[in-house]
Amino acid sequence: MNKFFTLRDGYGTVQALIPEDVRHRLNLDGLAFESILRVSGTVQPRPEGQANRTLPTGEIEVHVSGLEVLNEAKKRLPINVKEHNRAKENLRLEHRYIDLRNRDLQHNLRLRSQVIMKMRECMINEYGFVEVETPTLFRRTPGGAQEFVVPSRKAGHFYSLVQSPQQFKQMLMVGAIDRYFQIARCYRDESTRPDRQPEFTQLDIELSFTDREKVIELIENVLLQSWPYADNPIRGPFPRMTLAEAMERFGSDKPDTRFDYELQNFTEMLGTQLTVPAGVRQQDFRAYGIVVRAKEAQNLPTWLKKSLEEIAKKSNFCKFTQSKVTPDWSSGPIVRLLGKEAAETLSVRLSLQPDDLLLLGWGKQTYVQNMLGRIRLAAYEALEERDLVPKRQTHAHNFLWVVDFPMFSENEETGQIESTHHPFTAPHPEDAAALSTLNPGDNIYNIRSLAYDLVWNGVEIGGGSIRIHNSQLQRTVLKDVLKIEHAHLHHLLDALESGAPPHGGFAIGLDRYVALLCNAASIREVIAFPKSLDGKDPLSKAPVPISEEEKRIYHIRVVE
Amino acid sequence: MNKFFTLRDGYGTVQALIPEDVRHRLNLDGLAFESILRVSGTVQPRPEGQANRTLPTGEIEVHVSGLEVLNEAKKRLPINVKEHNRAKENLRLEHRYIDLRNRDLQHNLRLRSQVIMKMRECMINEYGFVEVETPTLFRRTPGGAQEFVVPSRKAGHFYSLVQSPQQFKQMLMVGAIDRYFQIARCYRDESTRPDRQPEFTQLDIELSFTDREKVIELIENVLLQSWPYADNPIRGPFPRMTLAEAMERFGSDKPDTRFDYELQNFTEMLGTQLTVPAGVRQQDFRAYGIVVRAKEAQNLPTWLKKSLEEIAKKSNFCKFTQSKVTPDWSSGPIVRLLGKEAAETLSVRLSLQPDDLLLLGWGKQTYVQNMLGRIRLAAYEALEERDLVPKRQTHAHNFLWVVDFPMFSENEETGQIESTHHPFTAPHPEDAAALSTLNPGDNIYNIRSLAYDLVWNGVEIGGGSIRIHNSQLQRTVLKDVLKIEHAHLHHLLDALESGAPPHGGFAIGLDRYVALLCNAASIREVIAFPKSLDGKDPLSKAPVPISEEEKRIYHIRVVE
Repeated sequence: MNKFFTLRDGYGTVQALIPEDVRHRLNLDGLAFESILRVSGTVQPRPEGQANRTLPTGEIEVHVSGLEVLNEAKKRLPINVKEHNRAKENLRLEHRYIDLRNRDLQHNLRLRSQVIMKMRECMINEYGFVEVETPTLFRRTPGGAQEFVVPSRKAGHFYSLVQSPQQFKQMLMVGAIDRYFQIARCYRDESTRPDRQPEFTQLDIELSFTDREKVIELIENVLLQSWPYADNPIRGPFPRMTLAEAMERFGSDKPDTRFDYELQNFTEMLGTQLTVPAGVRQQDFRAYGIVVRAKEAQNLPTWLKKSLEEIAKKSNFCKFTQSKVTPDWSSGPIVRLLGKEAAETLSVRLSLQPDDLLLLGWGKQTYVQNMLGRIRLAAYEALEERDLVPKRQTHAHNFLWVVDFPMFSENEETGQIESTHHPFTAPHPEDAAALSTLNPGDNIYNIRSLAYDLVWNGVEIGGGSIRIHNSQLQRTVLKDVLKIEHAHLHHLLDALESGAPPHGGFAIGLDRYVALLCNAASIREVIAFPKSLDGKDPLSKAPVPISEEEKRIYHIRVVE
Repeated sequence: MNKFFTLRDGYGTVQALIPEDVRHRLNLDGLAFESILRVSGTVQPRPEGQANRTLPTGEIEVHVSGLEVLNEAKKRLPINVKEHNRAKENLRLEHRYIDLRNRDLQHNLRLRSQVIMKMRECMINEYGFVEVETPTLFRRTPGGAQEFVVPSRKAGHFYSLVQSPQQFKQMLMVGAIDRYFQIARCYRDESTRPDRQPEFTQLDIELSFTDREKVIELIENVLLQSWPYADNPIRGPFPRMTLAEAMERFGSDKPDTRFDYELQNFTEMLGTQLTVPAGVRQQDFRAYGIVVRAKEAQNLPTWLKKSLEEIAKKSNFCKFTQSKVTPDWSSGPIVRLLGKEAAETLSVRLSLQPDDLLLLGWGKQTYVQNMLGRIRLAAYEALEERDLVPKRQTHAHNFLWVVDFPMFSENEETGQIESTHHPFTAPHPEDAAALSTLNPGDNIYNIRSLAYDLVWNGVEIGGGSIRIHNSQLQRTVLKDVLKIEHAHLHHLLDALESGAPPHGGFAIGLDRYVALLCNAASIREVIAFPKSLDGKDPLSKAPVPISEEEKRIYHIRVVE
């Protein structure tokens, strides 16, 4: 009898057949799966009726005439390469060298390489950009994420691993490298946040003598030209929305526009019926609602109601209620809240029908917008899971520019003023005068910046801005507004005084972007050797203790 | 009167002229040099007789009709952009954002970007390689250079910054990414060695089912296709030399073949006249000489003689003498050393003439070869400086493969056995059997590996090897031969047991390669923001002290 086996490499599989008459000298009995073979033979069509047209190699087989075992695998590998029998993620990460053989990881890593190469071809060959490598061992950037520190041989002196090449790229502009980009490794010690990695990659871009329109056009062209799906192309220009509109309609600075469920502003209609929560000034008070129609709402599970309440509970300065519409407004939270008259007005204005679900929030403007934005997403996801609404398509083309961000924001947790993007972002020309003549009592949050974010299907995949090139303005922002200790930034301030052209740029988070392109469940599916969620490396077990000799070299002692 | 000024950007300069009739409204008086201008005007040919054909823009000038100061520079910048007035290197590094405007740095960084892009086009578009980013936060690799450590939030646990992606690329081969490359950032804490940087870049390559010939051909094609000088092309295949021949003829594992001054083996001729230095076994004893002919040697300064003696003094297990040939061998160190008869034999065999200089070394083979190799270089450099010999051309095409290295070497300082390349290098097939049946007393240094180095004009620009894919052999090398603690390498050993194809690769040190391409004095001239020689960053002053809060997060205390 003939004997069959499957050969696999990174490109696919092929069926091999050892004909009966050579089986006495070509014997694979007892050889472990995943061993490495060299096979010679002839490619033949499979016999009548045995072709499998769903496989690329399904119509052929290799008739083996020679066979050599180049490296035998051990008998029981800890994880299986077959799709349908996938191991738990931590085991997969621990034996990543086996897991990488899986078809999806092969596809993801190869696609990632292709897409990034096409980005380079566009940037260098078409636009004349210069790829410049900038250091990762640097000095702490104040006011950002927690940065890893690296002890040096000089006692008490540490490098910090850069969280982005921001300062370097601005200094390159000052240094007349007027079109810079880099596929840059960046570091953030934020292991507690989901789907983050301690090291990640961004396409980092900066150019001189530019403006917002030019940067947006450039980024659109880079994405269009590197788009990998010829049968499902994207087109520019991408739509744009001001942050104010995104918050007003979607309660989010990165709206997922693949579905509606938009917020409706009820402030005027319901303002007098609702109690302004404590700590909210009347001028900041807003009321918004979302309507889920009866046919979608009717099967909503109780747990969803609870999880929406949970989201609401975590939001400061606002209130939330949810209620089904009853035929005659004889009962229910809405009537108790608004009174029958206002409830009926609402019914008429929104054409509410019995069993429609009304999600209502009120309180401090940005807080209530953000709360309802989160509730909107959670509600749609739940409906989607129960097939009550259309599934959002990963390859939908909902790219969106969000523009006109405020230059400064209030931290929702601490209440402190901070940069919405980063301290190097330039003010919107229409608001620049207001910034330079700021008086106590002026609302600093009204000052818009020249920042722009790129959102794809509700995920922020990149952001950028025109930068401050005036050293005096940069000092004002750092010192007077943000109260940032700028001793760490003297070199950047010096650079701005040394002949700095107007400049701006952008950065795309490549791990996330490629993960979306690949429809991957997490960025770990598009990274060859990712760390696990807690920042550990299941493969090598890093981080590990170091020797006393190393501690001595770097003048450190460990404190428990 | 018309007023002239020069406009400069990263691409060059142009002469601008403010015509007399508009000078009342376009006035640059008092504006600091290096300020940023927007100029509009018309390009005109320069007047008869004023063209400067040595400049690309020397035949034109811009007649200015509009002018805007976009950003004024401060009055006295700390360094000058003009070539002829270059500041000291540390000041240039401190104000790198100004220094980058210099023509040579502009050229170097732009050329670097172009060359690396062409390498990528060759690797990806022609050969189908996949560019994969591998982590830099990893676990210590035993037996290599000192690695930087990075404390984690888990007390006493540290990452190490990788010194190369070696282990990852081998695991990618096991994971069926059969053609990998990466422009990889690597880290070594070796600030004391000259012309090194704590972080550096290499073109890192690995492929499966390959052999030495295929890797060599690939690398040659990558270099040929990315070669930037069309008017001075290079051709393959590059010549090859075994390490044994390189040591015998040039006293170096990276011979500069642009000049001869080759070593001559006098062991047979002079063996009995010379005393074997202490600690050298008779079978290891060798004598070599270099002859510098009279017309080149006659003006040699005394300091050179001294500096050659200095080199000799630093070499263990060997002796050195230098002497001019006298007409009748009546005096001089050579006669005193060898006796008149041997001196005369030498004269005849080498056609020595009066005033020829003989540099003679003897002792333990590799030690005396290395010593004379260093002396050969030092002597030629001195002659070159005095124009007694032809200058070596930087763009000479002396690429050379050095092959057949020994797998293990004796450290010249400690005497300990170590890998000539690294512990993952495979033995030469002809010597593999000897390695697996090694007995006490066998000379392990006779076992050759499948390593290969690429040398250009006497500088090693890259190296690679076929790797060990058999886990048992890898264990033997680590444990029995090198006595390396391989707990740090369990993941690699596991990978080799999990179905590992035969594989090999290469790495090119891009900083050094591009520096040679640019004829730059140091690698710092091809890096945008290099550290200074002591590993410090003159720009940001990193490394710097960190806060108590950061020490708390990473559970460390500084010990003076």
